[in-house]
Amino acid sequence: MAATDPFTAEIANIRQQVEEGLRQLDLPARPQYLYEPVRYGLGGTAKRLRPVLVTLAGRSFDADESDLLNAALAVEILHNFTLVHDDIMDGDDQRHGQASVHRRWDVSTAILAGVGMFTLSQLLIGKVLTNPVDCWTRFNQATMEICEGQAYDKQFEQSDEISLDDYLAMVGKKTGNLLGLCAELGGIIGEQSNEICAGLYRFGLLLGQAFQIQDDILEITADATAMGKSLGSDIAAGKQTVLTIAARERNPGEWQVFCRENVKLNPVDTRKAYYDYYQLTGVLQHSRQLADEYIEKARQALSELTDDQRRRLLNFADLVLTRKK
Amino acid sequence: MAATDPFTAEIANIRQQVEEGLRQLDLPARPQYLYEPVRYGLGGTAKRLRPVLVTLAGRSFDADESDLLNAALAVEILHNFTLVHDDIMDGDDQRHGQASVHRRWDVSTAILAGVGMFTLSQLLIGKVLTNPVDCWTRFNQATMEICEGQAYDKQFEQSDEISLDDYLAMVGKKTGNLLGLCAELGGIIGEQSNEICAGLYRFGLLLGQAFQIQDDILEITADATAMGKSLGSDIAAGKQTVLTIAARERNPGEWQVFCRENVKLNPVDTRKAYYDYYQLTGVLQHSRQLADEYIEKARQALSELTDDQRRRLLNFADLVLTRKK
Repeated sequence: MAATDPFTAEIANIRQQVEEGLRQLDLPARPQYLYEPVRYGLGGTAKRLRPVLVTLAGRSFDADESDLLNAALAVEILHNFTLVHDDIMDGDDQRHGQASVHRRWDVSTAILAGVGMFTLSQLLIGKVLTNPVDCWTRFNQATMEICEGQAYDKQFEQSDEISLDDYLAMVGKKTGNLLGLCAELGGIIGEQSNEICAGLYRFGLLLGQAFQIQDDILEITADATAMGKSLGSDIAAGKQTVLTIAARERNPGEWQVFCRENVKLNPVDTRKAYYDYYQLTGVLQHSRQLADEYIEKARQALSELTDDQRRRLLNFADLVLTRKK
Repeated sequence: MAATDPFTAEIANIRQQVEEGLRQLDLPARPQYLYEPVRYGLGGTAKRLRPVLVTLAGRSFDADESDLLNAALAVEILHNFTLVHDDIMDGDDQRHGQASVHRRWDVSTAILAGVGMFTLSQLLIGKVLTNPVDCWTRFNQATMEICEGQAYDKQFEQSDEISLDDYLAMVGKKTGNLLGLCAELGGIIGEQSNEICAGLYRFGLLLGQAFQIQDDILEITADATAMGKSLGSDIAAGKQTVLTIAARERNPGEWQVFCRENVKLNPVDTRKAYYDYYQLTGVLQHSRQLADEYIEKARQALSELTDDQRRRLLNFADLVLTRKK
């Protein structure tokens, strides 16, 4: 067996700190109606990628560890709050290997638990002592962007005229933006210049967008076992992805005919037909190029950093961006 | 016609400032899915009592006007956010003279609009420059208490064993606590001692509790026209009030029989029967005494203040506590 490399060990260590920090929040027992679903919504098999990014970014600048932990917990709780509310809006039944909060209880309970988690995240980011005003302000500006991203996502559900730019801007607000905030908070707590902090935000933003493009590609190319979720579910739901939008933009009429003709096949055959279409038309290759472009831009966003400062962040990007393209 | 007294003029002036401040928030037009319901949720015929209290409390200590306006807008937006979410949970169709947000749009839209409003309130409280950390922390601690109050309210719906103390504690968290925060923010921005600030919080808290007790009494005693809402609706909904709980605590068996026997009458007769029962058993008088006790305790919470500092706050209490007992 290979020995664990230092980066993998650091990640495991940060995750342990985060789990420990969440346990030590010491939430009251009552009212049960509020705190039981809040505790539940913070549990499950989450990967804690966002607090890991806060911590790695902060350590690149020798930031205060106690401040980093508070910021890391704040973003993780913020993220989990958005999942609780998104699951209500999207009617999703499962999250982190357990029933979603509104399924385990009901919609009212989940709405309130989400708000309680959001408030908890505010109290935690409010504990950061280094550059507190910058941390709070950026935390809430980023949250407003997440709201905007979710709003665009709901709006786009009802439209079949979304451009690839619209889609990637929505993904940026909904997903990339929070990763951007994580990296930026590390810089703010590490007392870096506005320029460096803006670069860190951009790194996280672009990484999030690259991740989504890859995820959209994997939905159609990966082994079901490797993905750990039902593949082709986006196709079944008629969900827009980088691939569907690129295919429509390439030739709207042809794409419409193709979708209509492939609606009656069974799931496995459907997925194969879409794969072949994306392959044949160059849509798949185009999407892979797009992912590579975003990854490259994310790396370039760190150009102001020293090699040593960049190291952890580039390792993190490798961790997030799956190698199975 | 009587000339407008200075206090009435000051209130009108503050309300105008608040409406103007809300208009000048300059929210983006897009995404429409988010900002249209946010704007709508901040409108309607609201009385703006909470921002009025922030401003009056702050002016008692010559606090910075620009900080007071930001704090006033923050609490008003926070309050309106809680109404949007409460209306979903309670299935209420009307608010501030217009359809509630989830009726005008749908539940998903209202959940997200509420969170957007909450985030907006955070950005505004974050703009306060005097004692920002205290303002920020108290703002979010109070919000957590509002969540707890709403949780207890939902829990209590399913129980018929709530004591008067439980009920008043719930009212304190859900309603009084926010008024407490308003008065306290005026003190924090006015750079007052922790002792004074704690007294201001207590004043608002007790005032809110007194207000709720009076409201529960008015539900059964007032003219329908004076209240501007359908009286007896609490009875119809089987809602717990100070009166129903006091009547149950006084004689559980007798109360149970009374409620069962009066279930089939028409609304007007039902209300009359309850009124007579509360009158006859002394429950009404007891509840009025309770309201007076809370009002007196609220006044006493300001004992550390000078007469001049107290003046605006006592006028405010008179404004809130209706004279029709």
